[in-house]
Amino acid sequence: MRIIKASTPYADGFRMPAEYERHDGCILIFPERSDSWQYGGYAARKAFVQVAEAIAESEHVTVCAGEAQYDNARALLSERIRVVEMSSNDAWARDYCPTFVKNDKGDVRGIDWGFNAWGGLYDGLYFPWDKDNRMARKLCDLLDLDVYDKRDFILEGGSIHVDGEGTCMVTESCLLSQGRNPRLARAEIEENLKAYLNVSKILWLPCGIYGDETNEHVDNICAFTAPGHVVLAWTEDETDVQYAMSAACLTYLEQAVDARGRRLAVHKLPLPRPVTITEEECRGLDACWDEPTRMPGERLAASYVNFYIANKSVVMPGFGDPADEKAKEVLQELFPDRRVVQIYARDILIGGGNIHCITQQIPSK
Amino acid sequence: MRIIKASTPYADGFRMPAEYERHDGCILIFPERSDSWQYGGYAARKAFVQVAEAIAESEHVTVCAGEAQYDNARALLSERIRVVEMSSNDAWARDYCPTFVKNDKGDVRGIDWGFNAWGGLYDGLYFPWDKDNRMARKLCDLLDLDVYDKRDFILEGGSIHVDGEGTCMVTESCLLSQGRNPRLARAEIEENLKAYLNVSKILWLPCGIYGDETNEHVDNICAFTAPGHVVLAWTEDETDVQYAMSAACLTYLEQAVDARGRRLAVHKLPLPRPVTITEEECRGLDACWDEPTRMPGERLAASYVNFYIANKSVVMPGFGDPADEKAKEVLQELFPDRRVVQIYARDILIGGGNIHCITQQIPSK
Repeated sequence: MRIIKASTPYADGFRMPAEYERHDGCILIFPERSDSWQYGGYAARKAFVQVAEAIAESEHVTVCAGEAQYDNARALLSERIRVVEMSSNDAWARDYCPTFVKNDKGDVRGIDWGFNAWGGLYDGLYFPWDKDNRMARKLCDLLDLDVYDKRDFILEGGSIHVDGEGTCMVTESCLLSQGRNPRLARAEIEENLKAYLNVSKILWLPCGIYGDETNEHVDNICAFTAPGHVVLAWTEDETDVQYAMSAACLTYLEQAVDARGRRLAVHKLPLPRPVTITEEECRGLDACWDEPTRMPGERLAASYVNFYIANKSVVMPGFGDPADEKAKEVLQELFPDRRVVQIYARDILIGGGNIHCITQQIPSK
Repeated sequence: MRIIKASTPYADGFRMPAEYERHDGCILIFPERSDSWQYGGYAARKAFVQVAEAIAESEHVTVCAGEAQYDNARALLSERIRVVEMSSNDAWARDYCPTFVKNDKGDVRGIDWGFNAWGGLYDGLYFPWDKDNRMARKLCDLLDLDVYDKRDFILEGGSIHVDGEGTCMVTESCLLSQGRNPRLARAEIEENLKAYLNVSKILWLPCGIYGDETNEHVDNICAFTAPGHVVLAWTEDETDVQYAMSAACLTYLEQAVDARGRRLAVHKLPLPRPVTITEEECRGLDACWDEPTRMPGERLAASYVNFYIANKSVVMPGFGDPADEKAKEVLQELFPDRRVVQIYARDILIGGGNIHCITQQIPSK
């Protein structure tokens, strides 16, 4: 593994492919952290395993597990899935496993962004985050890929989406947060994204999903489904606090053009009814230092947009909500060549994210 | 990774290649254990890194490092070497990383033998050994190779040598030890070796190197250098306790025939003068439970036979002994197509083994 400091993907002719381009594989991390996951991860394991197995139908899946949980991960996952030992602070592969870029010859490289647990000492979600922050480089080493050292720029994989044709989509609430790169102006953040993702246009949604602790990552509210097409998490309930947020994003998207000068087709993806955590569920969560992670009745940032596009399927969450079926239909229509698989993901949601957050694709060579 | 329980390499047409056949790579483990290695591994690191780099000249080297030492391993090793996170109890890749077998189509599989720290509760060298015992399977998973589950049979990689043409060489002192497979008769042990290594002839040397804590592994006293050719650790000093031991092996080898019916050419490889550990060196070793690992003046099992055959080199130990040069010449003559590289290995020897003990080759496909 060569660590590249003096150059950028743009300068070297590498770009971040869209998620709907062909993958070599996918990385997940086995859940273990007892203040994120109920019952020390025991509740979320089932959904994690289902997600991994669904993706493994069409991709080579690698699951990273800490030493203590390695044997359990190995026992729960089928033999087609690779389990490797790797320490982490939690299980958000999207946010701190490498962002991969590739060139026209099919060479793949990783980007090692800085990670500070979604806000560092300003409004980060746990401390310390050193093991998470080491994972990108460890994975590039494991995969024998060169890696760009961009640890001086704080970015999570879930805070960016690209269309593969020069456009990147982010949220202002996250990328301009004081907990990320407070000394960089918006234009400087754009320059970093352009240089490392090799894009020419940044779309700045104003916000994300209400209550999303990541400072509202884009991957929970809006995603490209094809060049020129996005899905947007949407509610028709004007009394819901989310309504104004989704509406603001819609207004922005309707006037936006992408890197190729196209207007975007915005497909509304219904939101489930507000999901709140129960007292019983809270009892399964250990405290984070001296504070409970969640309080009974707290609203969780549930959204169907948090799906993963695998080579032959789209793996999306379900919440046992009446909108589950409708959301699945919308995605199935947008991905006619892929089978949409819906996995009951309440136990992942309780951890603070969903299927897209716990996965990271490796583009094919 | 498929775990194979119902079959054997012999039944499936897989055999263990000789070390002088072509390799895809080599595995090492970064030293850390403070009762094996002086100063918490700090003394041995230098030699380990030199060995890894020497092998990396002609093979893809993977170094396994525990979480705590990962960053140090990564910083000390060059970028052509891969570092992966993997927990272990110590750093003896030869003895508990997989023994690899291959078939005529070039498929490679691993064997996961049982490991009990060279004797378990009978005369094992440390407790516990659970992390070591998990490594073979973890590495097969990492390498995407199927693995034979043979954990019910205790065997270390350093206790076997094969010529790649049907012959396996072992020592009675080790394989018949009460700390290995005491319920198996010699003939049953032979059957296991034949079934898993796919050999038809077992050569049983009576013993190994005096003071070798592994119950005298074969890889410290005798090694195949080519089909029909072995090197034997030898001293001309008849007053040395090792003399009778090497002589007994010579007597055995001179009457032996290999699997092809050949008489063996036995090449004597001089031993260094007895190497003893100093008081200063002992001060660098932590106690193993309530006993010191070594006592000042203790004789160490130094032998030049403990070399590694890489694709384009032979990496052998040196001890700062007058015989260093002669031993190198003998090996260079026996390996005319490889460059013999000698590495000062006293700090590895203090840990209880040498260069062959800390390496494990992966045959090429």
